[in-house]
Amino acid sequence: MSTLLIQHATVVTMNDQREVIEDGAIFIEGQCIKAVGKTPELVGERSQLAAASEVIDATDMVALPGLVNVHTHAAMTLMRGYADDMPLMPWLREKIWPAEMRMLENGFAEEAVYWGTMLACVEMIRSGTTCFNDMYHTFHAATQAMIDAGIRACPSGVLLGFLPDAPQRLEKAIDFCREMNGAAAGRIKVMLAPHALYTVEPPLLRRVRDAALELGVPIHTHLQETREEMQQIAEQYNGKSAIQVMNDIGVFDAPTLAAHCVYVSDADIDILRAKRVAVAHNPTSNLKLASGIAPIVRYLKEGVLVGIATDGAASNNDLDMVEEMRLAALLHKVATLDPTALDAYTALELATRRGAECLRRETEIGQIAPGFKADIVLFDFRAPHLTPRHNVISHLVYAARASDVHTVIIDGKVVLRHREFTQIDVEKVMAEASHYAALMTGQ
Amino acid sequence: MSTLLIQHATVVTMNDQREVIEDGAIFIEGQCIKAVGKTPELVGERSQLAAASEVIDATDMVALPGLVNVHTHAAMTLMRGYADDMPLMPWLREKIWPAEMRMLENGFAEEAVYWGTMLACVEMIRSGTTCFNDMYHTFHAATQAMIDAGIRACPSGVLLGFLPDAPQRLEKAIDFCREMNGAAAGRIKVMLAPHALYTVEPPLLRRVRDAALELGVPIHTHLQETREEMQQIAEQYNGKSAIQVMNDIGVFDAPTLAAHCVYVSDADIDILRAKRVAVAHNPTSNLKLASGIAPIVRYLKEGVLVGIATDGAASNNDLDMVEEMRLAALLHKVATLDPTALDAYTALELATRRGAECLRRETEIGQIAPGFKADIVLFDFRAPHLTPRHNVISHLVYAARASDVHTVIIDGKVVLRHREFTQIDVEKVMAEASHYAALMTGQ
Repeated sequence: MSTLLIQHATVVTMNDQREVIEDGAIFIEGQCIKAVGKTPELVGERSQLAAASEVIDATDMVALPGLVNVHTHAAMTLMRGYADDMPLMPWLREKIWPAEMRMLENGFAEEAVYWGTMLACVEMIRSGTTCFNDMYHTFHAATQAMIDAGIRACPSGVLLGFLPDAPQRLEKAIDFCREMNGAAAGRIKVMLAPHALYTVEPPLLRRVRDAALELGVPIHTHLQETREEMQQIAEQYNGKSAIQVMNDIGVFDAPTLAAHCVYVSDADIDILRAKRVAVAHNPTSNLKLASGIAPIVRYLKEGVLVGIATDGAASNNDLDMVEEMRLAALLHKVATLDPTALDAYTALELATRRGAECLRRETEIGQIAPGFKADIVLFDFRAPHLTPRHNVISHLVYAARASDVHTVIIDGKVVLRHREFTQIDVEKVMAEASHYAALMTGQ
Repeated sequence: MSTLLIQHATVVTMNDQREVIEDGAIFIEGQCIKAVGKTPELVGERSQLAAASEVIDATDMVALPGLVNVHTHAAMTLMRGYADDMPLMPWLREKIWPAEMRMLENGFAEEAVYWGTMLACVEMIRSGTTCFNDMYHTFHAATQAMIDAGIRACPSGVLLGFLPDAPQRLEKAIDFCREMNGAAAGRIKVMLAPHALYTVEPPLLRRVRDAALELGVPIHTHLQETREEMQQIAEQYNGKSAIQVMNDIGVFDAPTLAAHCVYVSDADIDILRAKRVAVAHNPTSNLKLASGIAPIVRYLKEGVLVGIATDGAASNNDLDMVEEMRLAALLHKVATLDPTALDAYTALELATRRGAECLRRETEIGQIAPGFKADIVLFDFRAPHLTPRHNVISHLVYAARASDVHTVIIDGKVVLRHREFTQIDVEKVMAEASHYAALMTGQ
């Protein structure tokens, strides 16, 4: 079994004791972290460690559990910058959905989604994300890209009720769950993804819930993103909110992750907490589409489970969790007019271990601790913008950049070393993605 | 005279016609841009261009006028991450000012400010900023760092009225203006910098105004940043705002740039517009200190002059104008609940030509056009997060990162090439800055 030793790092463990280990070492065997400690002690005590298959000298580097992006539409990288500065509904109806229909109807969906997802994986790995939660069309192709990229992910096939063959598509998504859950030695854990209550009717939602419970997979959806959505749902469902309707249907009897939750009532929050619905907070997307500011500080106070996410690259326009983490920490200070709100450590937690919890993978990932999967990011702190080094936690959240990511380990494998991919041909990924992006947008 | 030809770039000129030139070329002679056009035409017509002292092949790169950071305290890089998640006044009184007093009273202020400013210059150049507006102690040392770093800047000595020798310090700052204005072949243009109305009494402000008018230099100050400040000034000045008091004193008879202006009345806005007071918008700092969200969209509608800034690294915690530009574009969409607000092109304008106008340097910098100083940044667009390339303007604002800055030209000189400094020893800068940061914070 291959072994890997990282030594002389500042290890931000994100463990229950919030340990930060100076001159720390991490010993990895196969997919898993076996030991974590001070370099002199850990390596001194066990001389076999120094004989690991690979030894990484992480002097001047900070090791953090890989970032967890709890909501994206990976292949939408193909539409990055295609339509900006527009409201959500016209943006979806006039630009995004027509491009997606062009893709789905013109016979290149598999290739487009594969390369779009691969581009997303490349971008995410380079910016320190080691696990993400996806929702998109053509899930087989998307999942193949995730497997090939070496990333950990939760793929799901998006269910849009307005497509004429939606019920058949749902059955295919359910078959896909049966087939792919646990693929790639456990890197792939699937979900079922009804897009939203405003796009999927209750009978289909019930079928989703039943299948999720039967298969033991979570549900991934969108909830209460804009004021327009709130109004539309209230009109359609006798004044109820989407959260209340979904709860009445029983959707939340299955573990559920809901993106956005920008507008909520006290009753909605009670449901989110009681049903342990995870909220994927997408600060950039919510700002860019002018949706609003989700009450994240309140969620945290009230015990609602929250993670951080990028949303798709068409509404962000990148997949940079380092930036999302910082924006979350900044935004909720001004939203509450409290400069102590959502402090740096909390932002790190949301982007790592709580993100893992949102995906129901908290026993696998989110900490640098023995027994956890070896998903680790090394940030190179030898940079002007990270000098002087008064506080590593502060720097990770308020000053670090995606480009400081130096080495990325996923499932025990070094996928990025010295900022270069060990196996992926990035030039080819960019060329193929550009090709399909042009087809999709009719250029 | 040295000549420089950049060819095959996408040139975002930011000129009056908003021209974006594909396969563009820029010819530079000495400090200035001589010609801009299509590469085949420009280079074909004038064969002497191809014989330039240096030719840069900018294929897959985007050329933008250097970013203009209209408000910072450069040497505060020394306190990056020293105190976070605190309110403005305790942050200043308990952490920042005591550290600064330790520096001023213990005899290492010159060295600390030199290396702190040098660190800031390195960080800014690497992230595409070619001109910045500074306010800090020990202005000679700060200015020397700016000159040595090769950057364009507006230094000023901060005037804090509560220091016992404030009047003497002001006279020194005035002497400094006489001595240094126009230094480094015009790269250095000085300002006078009364910190704020809550720290400087009207008699000293009158002396500042008189000196500014006499010397023909602008005034750089802070205005209306927090609710606490608004209340304190209202109590002290019979219900008036700082803008009204400053205007009554006649400060705005000199060209003035005011950082923040988060809280303003209609009457305040009328004064800002009528007196052409430039507002330095610091989105990250205003969020991080939970000060509030400045009404930038309203300022733009009402014709108030606005630029974008980082503020000091102690309240940001970096000096990354690419990020500031993006945050400004995102933040004001949600602040107005209008996704079309502060679109990508406007964000670019604020960070380039309007920033130049804020500093009263709009005839020198802010455009890639003949006659302007050659302050140019080349962004490397061959990157996953900038793929596909549907829209270059969108990518610059919504997806580009500081680390995409590949080459920086200031005053006709290449100061950064292939992401490496041509003359500055960055390792030495980081080491010296770390040393003085430790002294300053008593470690």
